Amino acid sequence: MSCFELLTTDPHCAARRGVLTTAHGRVQTPAFMPVGTAGAVKGILPEQIEATGAQIILGNTYHLLLRPGVDVVEKLGGLHGLTGWNHPILTDSGGYQVFSLSSLTKIDDDGVEFASHLDGARIPLNAEIATEIQVRLGSDIIMCFDECTPYPVEEEKLRRAVARTIEWAKRCKAAHNTLVKGGANPTPIDPMGPISPTGRTASLLFGIVQGGVDPELRRQCAERIVEIGFDGYAIGGLSVGEGHEAMAQTVRCTVPHLPSEAPHYLMGVGMPIDILAAVMAGVDMFDCVLPTRNGRNAFAFTRSGSLRLRNSVHVESCEPLEPGCDCVCCRRFTRGAIRHFFNCGEMLGPILLSIHNLRFYQRLMADIREHIERGDFASWATGEMARYAGIEREP
Amino acid sequence: MSCFELLTTDPHCAARRGVLTTAHGRVQTPAFMPVGTAGAVKGILPEQIEATGAQIILGNTYHLLLRPGVDVVEKLGGLHGLTGWNHPILTDSGGYQVFSLSSLTKIDDDGVEFASHLDGARIPLNAEIATEIQVRLGSDIIMCFDECTPYPVEEEKLRRAVARTIEWAKRCKAAHNTLVKGGANPTPIDPMGPISPTGRTASLLFGIVQGGVDPELRRQCAERIVEIGFDGYAIGGLSVGEGHEAMAQTVRCTVPHLPSEAPHYLMGVGMPIDILAAVMAGVDMFDCVLPTRNGRNAFAFTRSGSLRLRNSVHVESCEPLEPGCDCVCCRRFTRGAIRHFFNCGEMLGPILLSIHNLRFYQRLMADIREHIERGDFASWATGEMARYAGIEREP
Repeated sequence: MSCFELLTTDPHCAARRGVLTTAHGRVQTPAFMPVGTAGAVKGILPEQIEATGAQIILGNTYHLLLRPGVDVVEKLGGLHGLTGWNHPILTDSGGYQVFSLSSLTKIDDDGVEFASHLDGARIPLNAEIATEIQVRLGSDIIMCFDECTPYPVEEEKLRRAVARTIEWAKRCKAAHNTLVKGGANPTPIDPMGPISPTGRTASLLFGIVQGGVDPELRRQCAERIVEIGFDGYAIGGLSVGEGHEAMAQTVRCTVPHLPSEAPHYLMGVGMPIDILAAVMAGVDMFDCVLPTRNGRNAFAFTRSGSLRLRNSVHVESCEPLEPGCDCVCCRRFTRGAIRHFFNCGEMLGPILLSIHNLRFYQRLMADIREHIERGDFASWATGEMARYAGIEREP
Repeated sequence: MSCFELLTTDPHCAARRGVLTTAHGRVQTPAFMPVGTAGAVKGILPEQIEATGAQIILGNTYHLLLRPGVDVVEKLGGLHGLTGWNHPILTDSGGYQVFSLSSLTKIDDDGVEFASHLDGARIPLNAEIATEIQVRLGSDIIMCFDECTPYPVEEEKLRRAVARTIEWAKRCKAAHNTLVKGGANPTPIDPMGPISPTGRTASLLFGIVQGGVDPELRRQCAERIVEIGFDGYAIGGLSVGEGHEAMAQTVRCTVPHLPSEAPHYLMGVGMPIDILAAVMAGVDMFDCVLPTRNGRNAFAFTRSGSLRLRNSVHVESCEPLEPGCDCVCCRRFTRGAIRHFFNCGEMLGPILLSIHNLRFYQRLMADIREHIERGDFASWATGEMARYAGIEREP
């Protein structure tokens, strides 16, 4: 049975309205996943995440692997037990952080060995280990271990990364079949230790398409990944510096090679304009640190543009951050109060802006879903993209 | 009309059950006030404070005077507007922090001049200014400006502080009468600028009794302060190093000199054992930074003793912090998860322990009120004091 039900497709573009079913509940798509780095969306309680309208969060395997470690997470009831979040959780494979945060000490066709950015400990990671870790974390949606390339990148390196991503995807599927789908004699894979016999989540496995901004490589990679067969398909390796247009163009030329009956997930994206363009191209799922990271840096998203709350123009402002927003920040606090909290290093500043930005993103997704249902998404989204074109990415 | 209604007095001790009425609502006493240093209980949203059961919070005049300043607070809707807390707020006079945090550049019978601990700016503070600041902050309960002495202190210095505290109390009452109770031609006092004509809170004014641990000085001071006449009476200058027994003894010999029909407030106290002893002596109100400050330092209060959540003994613990506690920390998180949050510097650690400790204190106050109503407070409190005798004050 498919995990994804397609409810509506927009008549004027590839936008889709759907429902994704996981072991911990359903997710209305298009959906945005807040990022819970180390088992928590920074500073935000699960009931506050629920109040923003989020239905699924993302956990970073890399960070959890280093602290508190897979054994500990497993003993504390898996990622759901650790975070107090009783709804769906998707985990990344750790690959992205390995390539961006740690010192790689070895990479070959088997996988990688990296040095922890915390203490330098050397840790191996490959298709089998990354899959097992995510199974043991109790993830609802497990991502294949892939090779992420930077931007720009030499063609030879990109081709090798695509080839490895395809081979590793096959191994991830085999490992997932053995561990979760009850293959014969599920043998734990060292060095992660034995798998807890209880509480194993009936997780979904998503394949990842790489290929940089090369349409032909993206097509080839997509076809191979689809041949292997997964519960859902992700587009990885974007939002790494290629810019909005190249990102959107790559998404537009990749999605058509993915099965329409499966969910499409654009990893690590992005700004409101990026999300609108990708939904228009047929993407169903997103994650990004921007609402929370920017919020912690006093940067607020609003429909009228961005606000920098450290700015002295807000000192005496009695306005809410965004008039009409129903989040606790906008209901209870003035811009002047928020500015004061940032000015004196009070934790409420980062907390309130994280909550507002998460609510802003969830309102955006709710609007997107509503316009797809109404059949007027394409024209509405074009207007919204013009509205958001001027917002910078970083505070 | 009195602001305080005495409902019950315990038959076996001086404990009282009452209701305090302020411009922003009623407070069931004995009551504990969380401390909102700079316009926020650090990291805690007003709805989370409400959920702990707190009915009144304390604001620090000293911190607010320095940042964001009285003009700004006033423009942002007063302290209630700044904090998003629509319930009673008591403000201290700033005196305690002036004596403990800043460099005093001048002290005489008129008042003090101090250098801000933030930027060294020289700021005058005296009875009239402290009263006007609190009026302009929109406080529900204004505290008189008093001279706090350290412990131990030379007798001469203590006597002079008591004499000044009495003189300053008279001036605070006169200023309060002029500013709030509509005396003839209320003239704003420099250097704080004009008083906002709108939204002035019908504030109560509390007198403060000083006198160190000297019973005779406490009696004399109490009699003079009561002669002046205030809406409520506070015992200041305790919990400064004199220890539980000297504190409790001083409270026991001071309360009998305060009018029984007015609320009694013990400032800056304290640990659960201190609160129980003081309620037994007839105290109705408390404030203290311990639940939040200790919480931020990974120290949790429970009925079975204290817990230090950085301790590695908790790494794999699936237990809640305090079984049976109904706070969000205990309902949703394991000790292992909380330990992990502290270990990786995640804000949720301090937030969760602050919430738990505040809920612990409010449960203690609710238990106290219930046992006074039942008439068995004295015997119950004696048992509880034995239970809490072993808890250290600091993490």
